[in-house]
Amino acid sequence: MKYSTEDIEKIIYRYLPEESGYPIKVIQAMNYAFMAGGKRLRPMMMKLCFDMFKKEDNEELIGPFMAAIEMIHTYSLIHDDLPALDNDELRRGKPTVHVKFGEDIAILAGDGLLNYAFSVAAQAFSVKPGDVNVEKAFSVLASKPGIYGMIGGQTLDVIKSGSPLTDEEIEYIYINKTSALIECAMTIGALLGGASGDEVDKIGQVARAVGMAFQVQDDILDIVGDEKALGKPVLSDEKNEKYTYVTMHGMEKSRQYVNNMSDKANNILSELNVTDNNAKESLINLITQLIDRDR
Amino acid sequence: MKYSTEDIEKIIYRYLPEESGYPIKVIQAMNYAFMAGGKRLRPMMMKLCFDMFKKEDNEELIGPFMAAIEMIHTYSLIHDDLPALDNDELRRGKPTVHVKFGEDIAILAGDGLLNYAFSVAAQAFSVKPGDVNVEKAFSVLASKPGIYGMIGGQTLDVIKSGSPLTDEEIEYIYINKTSALIECAMTIGALLGGASGDEVDKIGQVARAVGMAFQVQDDILDIVGDEKALGKPVLSDEKNEKYTYVTMHGMEKSRQYVNNMSDKANNILSELNVTDNNAKESLINLITQLIDRDR
Repeated sequence: MKYSTEDIEKIIYRYLPEESGYPIKVIQAMNYAFMAGGKRLRPMMMKLCFDMFKKEDNEELIGPFMAAIEMIHTYSLIHDDLPALDNDELRRGKPTVHVKFGEDIAILAGDGLLNYAFSVAAQAFSVKPGDVNVEKAFSVLASKPGIYGMIGGQTLDVIKSGSPLTDEEIEYIYINKTSALIECAMTIGALLGGASGDEVDKIGQVARAVGMAFQVQDDILDIVGDEKALGKPVLSDEKNEKYTYVTMHGMEKSRQYVNNMSDKANNILSELNVTDNNAKESLINLITQLIDRDR
Repeated sequence: MKYSTEDIEKIIYRYLPEESGYPIKVIQAMNYAFMAGGKRLRPMMMKLCFDMFKKEDNEELIGPFMAAIEMIHTYSLIHDDLPALDNDELRRGKPTVHVKFGEDIAILAGDGLLNYAFSVAAQAFSVKPGDVNVEKAFSVLASKPGIYGMIGGQTLDVIKSGSPLTDEEIEYIYINKTSALIECAMTIGALLGGASGDEVDKIGQVARAVGMAFQVQDDILDIVGDEKALGKPVLSDEKNEKYTYVTMHGMEKSRQYVNNMSDKANNILSELNVTDNNAKESLINLITQLIDRDR
């Protein structure tokens, strides 16, 4: 099975809160950010990992977690864009949430999405009450985006903004700021699909390699891309005086690194025995596309 | 069993993240806010509700949720104090997190605490794997602080700041902004203690009455209290041109309302059959103290 962005959106949009009642303004801001586009990479990878191992299709089980991971990704973008952090006014060619709804609502909308992600994921408890794999998936959803994952990476990134980074520091930032959510998504997919502990570990390794490749490719595009294609200022990282893998190691070494990480991910996947080889092939294709993307 | 603030802190401090590694700055900010004091009301009420119904003492089970509810309360204070929201520079006589650590770290520390709350609560899954009551407790922890609870109340409060409120609006704000977390705490305690569905409902009614009484009492103190006793500007609500129950209905009607809500809570509790009557008595005493407090 291969999924388009629209296929994934059809699933995850079902879990958005209805725009009504007293909190309507914060819900509008949450949904505005959530529906602003993007590749839906994380829920797509989660679904493909689920499909690879699953014994039965159960969209009621995986759907809430697919929506939840995208909500967490979206909240992190809303808060990242705030004046006190990256101070970005445009994202994907549209005004950022604080520009459109005000800074107060943007802070609450980010909080709302992070919190709602757990509320949506908790719907899976009633699909399979007392299921230990659902509980494990929940624990992964709670740990990888946090201080020992994404927020940890963001923290070092913020603290080091404008200062030179060591190799260890940039690796820490990339593994946590970017890879952690991809690892979260793929691990949850494998867990809910019923993968063994060893298989879940292997999927984690794939995810970290993909995440690193994805982030360095993003840095490359940030230099060579043009503003229109990305819908955001091309040199925003340089404007903020951020150090990236590309500014530290140069374009050639960066492209080599992306290829190495991509090969690593695909090699581990190739050797994995799965129940649905079409899903595996789709995942390998998706990873290859991600690395070769020009936007 | 009666608990002091220190007894509760002894339990919840065990779950704080260690101040080390790359994210150290955000962890310091989280712990600074968490350890800034307060009555520890929510975890205390959670523990007493747990004790009332429990068949066996299991601090490993209730402890993570006690810490989690206080982390969620603390994150909401950090974000509330931000310049874009209440713009408060002091809380309990100390500089607020954004004053001490910067606005960027304050946003991340709030996000970190909200996220870490779920990570800590997830520890209970390994204490009782596959336990449906733990899953239910988790669902309550994910729902009550969110857009259909605390964040919903904050949103209307922010939108209406400076405008007159209808009775329905102020009730919505109080039920959600203040009562929701108290209801969350007490309901989780009862659930994990093994209360029946009907008993959990009754505890929810008690919590809503206590929450309303607590908030209106807070409004009263905001008018009559003095700055030193509270450690924050006495007229901060008036400074922000906020409408409160007291400014809308006057002091006498407000005091009457607090007493009515307090009586309601204690009456429901009195009629409840519990396994530990000492815990019930402690809870009734705590509620009475809260209502009679002068700070």
